[in-house]
Amino acid sequence: MAFELREECGIFGVFGHPESSKLTYLGLHALQHRGQESAGIASSDGECIFFHKEMGLVADIFDEETLEKLPGHLAIGHVRYSTTGTSELKNAQPIVVDFEQGSLAVAHNGNLVNAHVLRRELEREGSIFQSSMDTEVIVHLIARSKEELLENRIVDALEKVKGAYSLIFLTSDRMIGVRDPHGFRPLVLGKVKNGWVLSSESCALDLIEGELVREVDPGEMVIIDERGVTSVRPFLPAPQRFCIFEFVYFSRPDSIFMGTSVYNIRKEMGRQLAREQGVDADIVIPVPDSGLPAALGYSEESGIPFMMGLIRNHYVGRTFIEPQQSIRHFGVKLKLNAIRDVIQGKRVIVIDDSIVRGTTGRKIIKMIRAAGAKEVHFRISSPPTEYPCYYGIDTPIRRDLIAATHSIEEINRYLTSDTLGYLSVRGLHRCCPGQGADIYCDACFTGKYPVTFDFAEQEQLHLFRSQPSVKIKTR
Amino acid sequence: MAFELREECGIFGVFGHPESSKLTYLGLHALQHRGQESAGIASSDGECIFFHKEMGLVADIFDEETLEKLPGHLAIGHVRYSTTGTSELKNAQPIVVDFEQGSLAVAHNGNLVNAHVLRRELEREGSIFQSSMDTEVIVHLIARSKEELLENRIVDALEKVKGAYSLIFLTSDRMIGVRDPHGFRPLVLGKVKNGWVLSSESCALDLIEGELVREVDPGEMVIIDERGVTSVRPFLPAPQRFCIFEFVYFSRPDSIFMGTSVYNIRKEMGRQLAREQGVDADIVIPVPDSGLPAALGYSEESGIPFMMGLIRNHYVGRTFIEPQQSIRHFGVKLKLNAIRDVIQGKRVIVIDDSIVRGTTGRKIIKMIRAAGAKEVHFRISSPPTEYPCYYGIDTPIRRDLIAATHSIEEINRYLTSDTLGYLSVRGLHRCCPGQGADIYCDACFTGKYPVTFDFAEQEQLHLFRSQPSVKIKTR
Amino acid sequence: MAFELREECGIFGVFGHPESSKLTYLGLHALQHRGQESAGIASSDGECIFFHKEMGLVADIFDEETLEKLPGHLAIGHVRYSTTGTSELKNAQPIVVDFEQGSLAVAHNGNLVNAHVLRRELEREGSIFQSSMDTEVIVHLIARSKEELLENRIVDALEKVKGAYSLIFLTSDRMIGVRDPHGFRPLVLGKVKNGWVLSSESCALDLIEGELVREVDPGEMVIIDERGVTSVRPFLPAPQRFCIFEFVYFSRPDSIFMGTSVYNIRKEMGRQLAREQGVDADIVIPVPDSGLPAALGYSEESGIPFMMGLIRNHYVGRTFIEPQQSIRHFGVKLKLNAIRDVIQGKRVIVIDDSIVRGTTGRKIIKMIRAAGAKEVHFRISSPPTEYPCYYGIDTPIRRDLIAATHSIEEINRYLTSDTLGYLSVRGLHRCCPGQGADIYCDACFTGKYPVTFDFAEQEQLHLFRSQPSVKIKTR
Amino acid sequence: MAFELREECGIFGVFGHPESSKLTYLGLHALQHRGQESAGIASSDGECIFFHKEMGLVADIFDEETLEKLPGHLAIGHVRYSTTGTSELKNAQPIVVDFEQGSLAVAHNGNLVNAHVLRRELEREGSIFQSSMDTEVIVHLIARSKEELLENRIVDALEKVKGAYSLIFLTSDRMIGVRDPHGFRPLVLGKVKNGWVLSSESCALDLIEGELVREVDPGEMVIIDERGVTSVRPFLPAPQRFCIFEFVYFSRPDSIFMGTSVYNIRKEMGRQLAREQGVDADIVIPVPDSGLPAALGYSEESGIPFMMGLIRNHYVGRTFIEPQQSIRHFGVKLKLNAIRDVIQGKRVIVIDDSIVRGTTGRKIIKMIRAAGAKEVHFRISSPPTEYPCYYGIDTPIRRDLIAATHSIEEINRYLTSDTLGYLSVRGLHRCCPGQGADIYCDACFTGKYPVTFDFAEQEQLHLFRSQPSVKIKTR
Repeated sequence: MAFELREECGIFGVFGHPESSKLTYLGLHALQHRGQESAGIASSDGECIFFHKEMGLVADIFDEETLEKLPGHLAIGHVRYSTTGTSELKNAQPIVVDFEQGSLAVAHNGNLVNAHVLRRELEREGSIFQSSMDTEVIVHLIARSKEELLENRIVDALEKVKGAYSLIFLTSDRMIGVRDPHGFRPLVLGKVKNGWVLSSESCALDLIEGELVREVDPGEMVIIDERGVTSVRPFLPAPQRFCIFEFVYFSRPDSIFMGTSVYNIRKEMGRQLAREQGVDADIVIPVPDSGLPAALGYSEESGIPFMMGLIRNHYVGRTFIEPQQSIRHFGVKLKLNAIRDVIQGKRVIVIDDSIVRGTTGRKIIKMIRAAGAKEVHFRISSPPTEYPCYYGIDTPIRRDLIAATHSIEEINRYLTSDTLGYLSVRGLHRCCPGQGADIYCDACFTGKYPVTFDFAEQEQLHLFRSQPSVKIKTR
Repeated sequence: MAFELREECGIFGVFGHPESSKLTYLGLHALQHRGQESAGIASSDGECIFFHKEMGLVADIFDEETLEKLPGHLAIGHVRYSTTGTSELKNAQPIVVDFEQGSLAVAHNGNLVNAHVLRRELEREGSIFQSSMDTEVIVHLIARSKEELLENRIVDALEKVKGAYSLIFLTSDRMIGVRDPHGFRPLVLGKVKNGWVLSSESCALDLIEGELVREVDPGEMVIIDERGVTSVRPFLPAPQRFCIFEFVYFSRPDSIFMGTSVYNIRKEMGRQLAREQGVDADIVIPVPDSGLPAALGYSEESGIPFMMGLIRNHYVGRTFIEPQQSIRHFGVKLKLNAIRDVIQGKRVIVIDDSIVRGTTGRKIIKMIRAAGAKEVHFRISSPPTEYPCYYGIDTPIRRDLIAATHSIEEINRYLTSDTLGYLSVRGLHRCCPGQGADIYCDACFTGKYPVTFDFAEQEQLHLFRSQPSVKIKTR
Repeated sequence: MAFELREECGIFGVFGHPESSKLTYLGLHALQHRGQESAGIASSDGECIFFHKEMGLVADIFDEETLEKLPGHLAIGHVRYSTTGTSELKNAQPIVVDFEQGSLAVAHNGNLVNAHVLRRELEREGSIFQSSMDTEVIVHLIARSKEELLENRIVDALEKVKGAYSLIFLTSDRMIGVRDPHGFRPLVLGKVKNGWVLSSESCALDLIEGELVREVDPGEMVIIDERGVTSVRPFLPAPQRFCIFEFVYFSRPDSIFMGTSVYNIRKEMGRQLAREQGVDADIVIPVPDSGLPAALGYSEESGIPFMMGLIRNHYVGRTFIEPQQSIRHFGVKLKLNAIRDVIQGKRVIVIDDSIVRGTTGRKIIKMIRAAGAKEVHFRISSPPTEYPCYYGIDTPIRRDLIAATHSIEEINRYLTSDTLGYLSVRGLHRCCPGQGADIYCDACFTGKYPVTFDFAEQEQLHLFRSQPSVKIKTR
Repeated sequence: MAFELREECGIFGVFGHPESSKLTYLGLHALQHRGQESAGIASSDGECIFFHKEMGLVADIFDEETLEKLPGHLAIGHVRYSTTGTSELKNAQPIVVDFEQGSLAVAHNGNLVNAHVLRRELEREGSIFQSSMDTEVIVHLIARSKEELLENRIVDALEKVKGAYSLIFLTSDRMIGVRDPHGFRPLVLGKVKNGWVLSSESCALDLIEGELVREVDPGEMVIIDERGVTSVRPFLPAPQRFCIFEFVYFSRPDSIFMGTSVYNIRKEMGRQLAREQGVDADIVIPVPDSGLPAALGYSEESGIPFMMGLIRNHYVGRTFIEPQQSIRHFGVKLKLNAIRDVIQGKRVIVIDDSIVRGTTGRKIIKMIRAAGAKEVHFRISSPPTEYPCYYGIDTPIRRDLIAATHSIEEINRYLTSDTLGYLSVRGLHRCCPGQGADIYCDACFTGKYPVTFDFAEQEQLHLFRSQPSVKIKTR
């Protein structure tokens, strides 16, 4: 549900282009859907690292003047929606530090499940922490590594962490990309003219007229410098566990993974949903824009006509003043409106990608009923979201996930839909590249977390989650 | 073409609600697509008129604090894209003035073709002008009228002006709505609880949970006060000439005119387009979001599958820094991306609502070709836009309208499409409410302007158009 | 008392300099003490008038970019503290309008006592008002004048108004300065290179390295264009009535009037005060910075040593958060602190320029006593302020002027000073240029208003004064 | 010279007051003259540390809302003018970190001469640095200390650093103040109701109606918690070396050190200057406000009348647009203007506190001559500033100090004064508390640095100084 489930992070980097920070700015703009809270860019002219980060959207943070202060032929950037740590400037990335070998910048997408444990250890050895980001742990581990080469220090550090990470490092003259052995979070390698690009998604390559070379493999480290791209696989092999939710919701439909566009995967989910959860009805309508490809697929498979029964208003501001006098289901009304002409007297199938808390879905169904629908059948192009994600997605804690605590029948009653149908886990896998191969993390649906947690880590997951917004916890 | 043709204005008013300025704020938000340059609200507590206006978007201009300074049970508001006058705060509306009978606020959607002539006359009689808006002319005429009653003064003033206007006036205790005799621009009457609403479009009523009562008739004046709504028809009758472009592009698809949703009208345009401009192809794709309903209609009528081959990025900032190194067709790339998976190897029909300059269409077609399309057939759900609008829509001057100066064959060549097809004028009329009745202004397509211009007025139309952005012209 | 009595307005203009708007910006900066609420500049390149105005300080409003949009070789500017009208952008000056003869900008220092009456008449004839400034009345009168020449129209208009005005007009190619026949408010003529300058005070000429030519005479109009300065005296002669409070408080000490620096006039007031209100004491201290010159004069005349017993903090912000727990006389503490070393055990004479409400004086005396003063003798270098000003100075209404409602003995008791002494009216006149000649308006001290008011005008003076801050009064 | 020599830092803290962050805000406001680049406050409610810091002035950074997010009964604050590190938010203080023992905030006034050396060592051991402040070194040393008690860790850390520091630490439940063994920078202890205060200067106590208890001794650590104030002297004793420039320029005249007000010390410098550098003249004028007390002393001692021949404009904005056409000595003109009436035809003695580069003095003398002075004798109430400061004052490097490279005769010629006279070092000492005792650091005048530097440290002093504004140096 586009309005309930919030994003994670996006990372981007360019090596070998005279306007590297401008390309990074454009790349981050294309990845803006992955995080809207803060953005930052660090660049290098071969000698010094320059950086700028702020709260807000990429297009508001950077202008001609700011970008001119980020010179050089290599740059990395980050858009953030906080997964650990609170939403403050001090938690914006890239993190830029000085350590023994000079300056280092790092941009991180993912979440470390043992960050808290490592942090305590590091503090015990005298480290100080200036943010609540798990990424700061990685930097400390690199700084403390006894290895000579930075590449080896990075490996040394990452061998200690558990969890999900796609990382881009920037030194004064090199860019290094790494993906965790399970490959939870995406990272692709591209080319732009004579330069190289690393990006969370391929859609950012399209914008800068670059081309997709390939995905960085799980467990792979790519070192990009004057001599080109060197690939290293320094970690023990582990089963691939790409986040299946990237296909369900996160990634932009025009991004390509494993040779397939996310659009087509989502449309296939809609087809499969029609097969599994068919119902007799007059029209299929999407919750725009998130449910659109699946609704098209559902319509094609079922033969029931596709209509745009809900219209999205694109001028939604950040904060909104509501009238005190009761206007019910107001929040959704600002973003969506139902078209009576399309809906009235119809049996309507509504397609969305997922249900998190259920509150938005309930409001949408009320809106559709108010527009005169005879029946409302809610169809979800993913399985019930029963478990929180610990690998970089900001889902509510379990008790707030409606599917974690209620049966489908109960959810249906709460939503006030006539019928409710989810895609099956098996059906979901069938739609994804690999034809059902066991290469995905679907823990949010199944609770099967690929990386197990010890007791301290479980504690962390709660601690991090309950951390209030400005304070630093004192022990 | 959503990115080329800019908007006009939206007006909204509430009488008889304790939170009238908050409802107006929400109403303006729903009408934001009609103007994004400035917005303003004027309210009255029965004694005094309060107002606030600024450059920018509704949600950025108003907050809890600003709205608290706009108390009272009646309020009117305006969102503006400048049609006459330049984009400056002094040209923001509502205009609020003091005159003999007290304070008066006015919000205007439309354009007066004889404003310049009247202004010169008024200046000759000693009037001063503080903006370049034609609306200021109306206020002067009202202030100078010898009538006793404000209603009669308004009629007196409007009898002197020629052109298009939907107006909402606010005094300390009344709200008055007027629509010009031709009814060029829309204005609807609604109810919210015990209060009355005037709005450019019905979609704003949906947001505040009001209900649509009816459209204000061409030439009708509605006076809303404590006693309710009084309707007057003070003008000589004239042929109805509702702006057909409201159906083609301006109005939100969820708005209803003459009992029909704009969505359905647009879809019907797509069907008619398929009948008139059929072509053998594999898929139909819209230019999102403007071409979506017509593309669905085209697909339904032709049986060619509908696909989302172009994806829209919703995080487009105001100003954008482009890399100096050539990235071709950049502007469109920030907003749209093609999905190769959908397009590659296909014969593609692309649907958009209109072509203005042609530059955007050319870029879109390049993008579709780059994604591997075998053929690209461009279909436009309106006739060629050959003539500028003088009734409130900001179209380029004639020489910049590609259809004014080039044949369809030439345009096709410029766009690099395989074939290009427009909807016929007759076909367009057939899709609109009234079944082809002669009740629309289609001057932008046909050059048949319902209100003729004398020489001085023609001069004005050019003068206003060439006025530069900050200066006040000195004679 | 610097912190109680607020300022009026400052005006400035340049003709014949390629950087006229930059010089005007600097001139306004030098006149900033005359008004801190809003500032504006209008310039002309010989064809068009450009302008920019905002709420705030000159240095915050204008930057390189803003000034570049104000091209041309003539410009006028205004800093405002509202005397009539409320503090809003719509009341910022210069007022720029279009009228029959083209564009006109005007900057006004002063106050018209019959503005309200004229406004009603104008409204009766069909004029509309967009601000609550009396200056707008002048512009309407000019626009309605039947004279051919603008100069004659201005005279025509000003013959109808009563009160105080120093005005600078700007057309596309001329700058015109006028001072009312009584010469209430200052206006000086200067030169900078080949250009001419008009300014409220001569200190602004020093900043731009111009030189003072002479004061514009009461009742004089100076027309400045390509041919140079033409002087006209179009009004009936009237007794000179220069505002004596300019010497007491308003003008900067480095400004020169009638050949004498304000600094020397103030110092002379201190000497005279010592003669009239001598008292045995150990030290003389000023309330900085307003009481400084008079304290030096008092010290010189009396032979009692001058000390800086109060220190001023120059980093005083606009709004200040006070602790809720009682910190007494807080407001003054933010601005002033007493030096115990200087004051302890001493009999102290404190010098300030005036007392308005008395609240600040009371706090200052408490502060001095808390620093250990044995005796505190308060001496004021002007007579008791008993009457409000209707000619452009924002004094409180009469009941808030402590000297209007209390005897000196009562004020002394309220202030908690040991003794209190004011300068006599005769003594004040003796210190000012003209050696006691009857050329000043001293109405605030004597109640002798040089321009009498009829009943309607008296009503205006109250109406304007009671006008609330954002609303427009409806009749 | 007030306009050339920039400030250092100010620190403030409160323990045991329910509105501790508000009092800290007021305290920082009173210390604003010590640093205007950034300000910050950290508070604790006994459990968590909250903080807020920004670039800008105290009154602009903090408002009711911000202060409400800083709850608790203990708080510390900092105003900064960067001495090491660049002017960026990341260099704003207090520094707040998490380490083994929880959260810790620190505010620092001073400069460590061996910070760079220690930083390299710490980096070698795996520490990362996120700012260029030397204070971060202290925090790392504390975090790495093997001591159990925080107090001991602080001592452990400070035993490793060399240089000047007055520090206030904040934990969740304690406030700790420390002054380096030489006592370079000031730190006073005060009381407010039941609470305790630490402040750079006593003037901040006056504002919050607290009272001065005593100065924190050189080498003393005061630990303030629920039980009150505990004093510890953990360092080896060292000769007292209080910065004599605090008396010459930094401290506010209303602050008290060693029982004497800075005002009286400065006045005494003026007297001594008159004795040492007497000259026959008509008037003595100060460069306001910095030269005021010394000018009064000079006048008293010499019997030559004191006058305010230069007037200061208090509305000086941050950035100022200068006209391109030559207006000479413009910068000073914005701040000062000469009063011709006072100066013309006079032999003038001008008093200022110091000369740094000489450029401002030269402009002032030109201005005084232009106002008609017959002779200009420049007298400086301190000795020639020949050496840079390494203990927390931002002076230019040596080659930019005019007195370092030129004889007094040469300086006199450059300034264009008739004569130039400085106070002698011995004379300066005589005016300061202690009657000439060897308890001051006067290295800026004598080059006798109390703390010697080894080679690496000297290198640091240059490295830090040349660091550009946004980059992080890469080795």
